[in-house]
Order: sequence, then C-alpha cells, then structure tokens
Amino acid sequence: MPITVKALQKGGPDQPFRVANIERRDPRPDDVVIDIKAAGICHSDIHTIRNEWGEAHFPLTVGHEIAGVVEAVGTDVTDWEVGDRVGVGCLVNSCGTCQECRAGQEQNCLSGNVGTYNAPDVDGTITQGGYAQKVVVDERFVCRIPDALDFDAAAPLLCAGITTYAPLNRWGAGDEKDGAPKKVAVLGLGGLGHMGVQIAAAMGAEVTVLSRTRKKEQLALDLGAQQMLATTDDGFFEDHRGTFDLILNTISADIPVDRYLSLLAPRGVMAVVGMPPAKQELSFGSIIGGGKVLAGSNIGGIAETQEMLDFCAEHGLTALIETIGIDEADATYDRVVAGEVYFRAVIDTSTFEGAEVG
Amino acid sequence: MPITVKALQKGGPDQPFRVANIERRDPRPDDVVIDIKAAGICHSDIHTIRNEWGEAHFPLTVGHEIAGVVEAVGTDVTDWEVGDRVGVGCLVNSCGTCQECRAGQEQNCLSGNVGTYNAPDVDGTITQGGYAQKVVVDERFVCRIPDALDFDAAAPLLCAGITTYAPLNRWGAGDEKDGAPKKVAVLGLGGLGHMGVQIAAAMGAEVTVLSRTRKKEQLALDLGAQQMLATTDDGFFEDHRGTFDLILNTISADIPVDRYLSLLAPRGVMAVVGMPPAKQELSFGSIIGGGKVLAGSNIGGIAETQEMLDFCAEHGLTALIETIGIDEADATYDRVVAGEVYFRAVIDTSTFEGAEVG
Repeated sequence: MPITVKALQKGGPDQPFRVANIERRDPRPDDVVIDIKAAGICHSDIHTIRNEWGEAHFPLTVGHEIAGVVEAVGTDVTDWEVGDRVGVGCLVNSCGTCQECRAGQEQNCLSGNVGTYNAPDVDGTITQGGYAQKVVVDERFVCRIPDALDFDAAAPLLCAGITTYAPLNRWGAGDEKDGAPKKVAVLGLGGLGHMGVQIAAAMGAEVTVLSRTRKKEQLALDLGAQQMLATTDDGFFEDHRGTFDLILNTISADIPVDRYLSLLAPRGVMAVVGMPPAKQELSFGSIIGGGKVLAGSNIGGIAETQEMLDFCAEHGLTALIETIGIDEADATYDRVVAGEVYFRAVIDTSTFEGAEVG
Repeated sequence: MPITVKALQKGGPDQPFRVANIERRDPRPDDVVIDIKAAGICHSDIHTIRNEWGEAHFPLTVGHEIAGVVEAVGTDVTDWEVGDRVGVGCLVNSCGTCQECRAGQEQNCLSGNVGTYNAPDVDGTITQGGYAQKVVVDERFVCRIPDALDFDAAAPLLCAGITTYAPLNRWGAGDEKDGAPKKVAVLGLGGLGHMGVQIAAAMGAEVTVLSRTRKKEQLALDLGAQQMLATTDDGFFEDHRGTFDLILNTISADIPVDRYLSLLAPRGVMAVVGMPPAKQELSFGSIIGGGKVLAGSNIGGIAETQEMLDFCAEHGLTALIETIGIDEADATYDRVVAGEVYFRAVIDTSTFEGAEVG
C-alpha cells in the first residue's frame, strides 16, 4: 500500500510552500523506506522550483540531500536493516547495466538516471524529493551515514559533499607532487566551496581559497585552508601565475577562464562544478601551453558517495549548517539566494509533526 | 672552433629563402654534432618566419624536425657515438632541474626551455633551426632514430609525431574500455592528423577520422581508421552524440566546441593540439554533464619523444612525405599553406651540396 506522508510542496513557481500529503509508493521488494530526519536545501532546489532550469512538474516537492533512518525494507533487501542510519542524494534509480552504471558512474547512466525529484520515474510518476517525512527508495541508491555524522550536518554531504569530493578525488588533490602536498585552490566559499576546502585539506592538499574579497578569511583558515586570496587585488593574476596544481571552481558566475587557467602550474587542472548561465570564452592556447586541463564534474556515483561519507566521518568533516523548521522554508530560499546562509540550511523534518496540511 | 655550415635563411618575412653560411657553436663537452640528412617543414616554421606569431629574429633559419647522423661528440658525451642515427625536435635545452624537467616534461620547463630556432639560447645567441647541413645540440636533447625508420619519413615524427602521440598516450587511447577498444576520433587529416590516426590505431583504438568532407576517405582507411565521417553531413552531431571516448583535435580553425563535446561519451576527453587564433566559446554544462574533459597538449618531453620513435619503428609508422630540394622551399611553403602537401614536405639536405651561398 502506498504510504501517505507530509511534505513541503509548491503548486507553482511563485507560490509559497504548503504542507501537503503526498504518496510514497508501496515498497517493492528492493525498496527501503526511510524516515527522514533532515533535508538540506540545495541551490538546485531553488533553480528547479522557480522554473529557472526549465518547466518543473507542479505540484512538486524538492530536496536531494536526505538523511534518516531505515523504517522498513522490502522482501529482497539484504544490505539494509530497520534502524540503519542512511542517506539519499541526487539519484534514486538508473539502469544498472550500462557501461557507466557498471563503472559506478550512475550519474552518467546511458539510459538516463532518475533524479530524486522532478524526474520521470520508471513507473511514469514524477519523483518527489526529500522535504518530507519519509521516502521510498531502491536500496541501490541508499548510502550509509556513519555514526560519527549527525543527520542534519550530514544531509548536505549527499550533494555538496560528493560534488566536491569526486573531482578532488579524480584529479588527485591528495597526491603528492615532487614530495610535497599539491597546491589546490578552491574558487568560491559557499555551500560547495566550504566542503571542497575541508575535503581537499583532509586529503592532504595545501589549500588556498580564492574569492572576490577576503571577508571570509578566518572561516577559510578554520576550515583548513592555508590562506585566502582576493581575486580583485591589484596584480592578483600576475602574482599567482603558474601556482596551483588544481583549481576547483565552485561558482556559478562568468569567470575570465584564460586568467584562471594562467594560475595553473603545468599539467594543472581546473575542475568546474558551477554552471554559469552564459557561454564562457577561452583560448585553446591557455590549455595547450603547459598541457592543462579543463574538466567538468557532476555529483558522483553511489559507491563514491559512500566513500565520501566514510571519508568525512573519518576526518570529522561536515557541512556548516543552520537548521530550520518547515515554516521557514520560503524565507530561507530568499536568504540562500541573497547569499546570507552560511553555508547550508537544513530542514528539521520533525517540524512536520503537528503541522496542518493545506 | 665554431662550425660553418650552409643553411636556408630568410632575411625578413617577405624575402625568399637564400643559402647562407651560418655558424654552429664550437661543441661543448656535452654537445653532439649532427650531420643533418632531412629536415621537415612544419606549419610552425611558416608562422614564425612570416611573423605571424610575433616578431622573428632575422636573419633566421627555421626547422625543428631534424634527422641525421652523429658526426662528432663532445668530451663528456657517453650516450652517443659517431655514426648514430639521431633526431632533434622542437627543444634544444632546458634547465634540467625544475619539477617539470625532472618529470620528463622539458616542454614545460619552469625556467623556460630553449626552442630549436628563433629562441634566445643560454649563450645569448638566437637558435637557428634544421634547414641546414649540420646542427650542434646538447646530448640531452637528442633522440635515437631506430634503424627501421628512414631519415626523411622520420624527421616529421620529431614534431608531428610527438604532438599527437603525447595526448593519445596520456589519455589512454590504447586502453580498453569495458573489454573493447576505445573509440578515438581524430579531427582533421593533415600533418598532425595523419600521424594521430596511425598512432591511435597502432595503440589499439578504433579510429574515426572527422573532417568537413569525405574527400580523403580512402587515405584515412589506409592509415588505419575504421571510418571517416563528414562533419558537414546533415544531422552529423545528433547521429554521433555520445560516441567517442577521445577526440584529438588537430585543426587550427574555430570549432563549435559544445557540439564537439556532445560527441564524447561520459568521461570522454577532447585533446586539443591545434590553436585557432580566436577565443573559443563553450558552456561549462557541456563538460559538467558526463564529467568530460577539455585538455591541451604541447609536443612532449624528450623521453616520451624517444618512446614515440620506438613505438613508430615497432609498428612501422612514418609520416607520409614528399621530399624536396632546397630550391623548392619557397614554393613548398605556399603549397603547405594552400593545403596541397600530403602531408609533410621534407627537405633533402644533401641538396645543399654544390649550392652557392648568397
């Protein structure tokens, strides 16, 4: 039987959130029912529900940073037990058989994966996200949240954590270069950047935070950076030419790509996870000289998400969060867009209790 | 004592070649004197001497695809003997001590390497290239030309060969993917492209040649490609979406970068070795989706150049060339620019014999 749960829902891009009853599917043999404890607010949620990324399917519940406890399991589930601490990120299904899925890259599934919300599910319904009391998910898309991590501070790891961990891992932020730590720059110190700094530092890199100003310098240092540099300082690009082995670009604004590439040492990599709306310009000469690399990265696969959670637990890394109740969601969206949330707002889903539907 | 040799020289960008006597330095203890047998004509030679890449130092002799025989060695040289078949490419010196040099990436030397021509040498003179009877080079910048390779067909390998080998090697053109050969596309079938096709095929890749037309199809197949596709065909980009694991872009013209990136499979790489004069545009979304990579590559280090020569000898790969005499150099430049040389013109330096200086 389908499960009715309370969820935060929007009826349209300009409407406020309302508490609605939504149905979760009758658990299939491979499904896990999760009692959601915390749901992070990701900027993608806002883009989606404000129709900034194309037409959303309303009424819609978003949220793909989900942490909770297993409440029930399907008959064929062997890896999960009631009471397990678990999380769900941006994906809830994929074909499981294509080259990418078999390589643990479900985010690239050649048949098209199923996003956690606003996506056509295999049964034809539209997926509904994690701003809710419960969710039903195929067991293959569930990760274990280590005991060392609190639900609310762990929830954002399922998106912001893996989004930064995957490129740092792929491009060897933790590898030594010539017997010394690699020099890693993190561009932007927001929801993604503040995880990238912690993860890169924990991997063993020498981390520099780059931002327009040095406003958040103390925080950058507290997160494990060696230094913070302001990109608007006179002569910044000349002074730091050829410095970094890896730049993780977490910002979604236009950047002077050639100038940032000039900050890379030979064979350096600029990994981009932020998507500015406009096309960016670069001279191929900026990557040919020095054999440099411009690399995209999009979340990560399920096994790597688990690896990231274990890594964060081992190193004591979590997102810096503020916890909000369901009635604060609209105001929090505005604050996220205004850059006033440091760094992730997380919905305490226990506040659904007693909330009236409608 | 300096060595006087005949060389093809230009007195200025608009002047014809003339035969001039130039001086090669008195060999130092680490130097090798090479009797040049063949010197390839690279498009870079033309760009340089026509002042298209900034002010050249006239009078100037160009040429960085040099093949010949060791004629004498300095007192400290142990690796080379008189009579050895050797080649010199784009580099004739570097610091030897920086991270890049120690990593065998002399092309990225942090102190700045010394190019084979038109570059300030360590002694303050301007280097003079290989369109000449002899050259004197530090032994560290000499490669062995295997007996299986003729001098004239081997000469272009020193630039066109390593320029294509290095990115194909770095990005694993020869690696299997899911138990099958990788799908490699070579964009452009000119001096670089025709080497790229042969090398990728010899590495074990399934090679597709991409060009505006299918004019050179038979040649592409003869070089080892599985197929040739015309990028101007209706629906080309849609039909081949997500196909290639690696695209080697050898053309120097503007390209619709996003459309080419869409041809890549997830985690695919577009390696660029051709440098269009204008900035190129791309959406970061084109690399974020699928975790794709845009990578530059610039020739290669000396050890890798040797590896490439050995690889080419083992697989019987050489450049397709036409051999010219020194009196044909001017006309050949025009034919190279007009795209009428398939694929490399190589100067037979024995034609200096009997040529009058002046």
